[in-house]
Amino acid sequence: MASAARLRFAAHVRQLRKAASWSQEELGEHAGIHRTYIGAMERGEANVTLDHLQRIADALKVDVAELLRAGE
Amino acid sequence: MASAARLRFAAHVRQLRKAASWSQEELGEHAGIHRTYIGAMERGEANVTLDHLQRIADALKVDVAELLRAGE
Repeated sequence: MASAARLRFAAHVRQLRKAASWSQEELGEHAGIHRTYIGAMERGEANVTLDHLQRIADALKVDVAELLRAGE
Repeated sequence: MASAARLRFAAHVRQLRKAASWSQEELGEHAGIHRTYIGAMERGEANVTLDHLQRIADALKVDVAELLRAGE
């Protein structure tokens, strides 16, 4: 089963990417990550590392801790 | 170079582990992670995954987002 951390991360990435009006491919280009891996992240399938979390946060211009914040 | 996320995580794990008066070995036992890997995490050498972040957060009884929070 995917950890709670994966599910939070997945939901934040999808929401922030859509707020930026980016496709998965566009986010991938900004973060230097392949679009298929962005898809796996957003489905909670990828067990993402800290360095990739940082790249996603930088691309989306948010603090990295925001990507794991509990939902309201 | 270690990402900012690694350095934040490293500092939080060390601080919370010491606050619990646990050795690296004791934290490892609670989290189901080898003590040498706990050491690598605390030195910012390990590119830790989301599932391991969750296990560390659960062992230290904090929310996973706390482990990436910016320092004051």
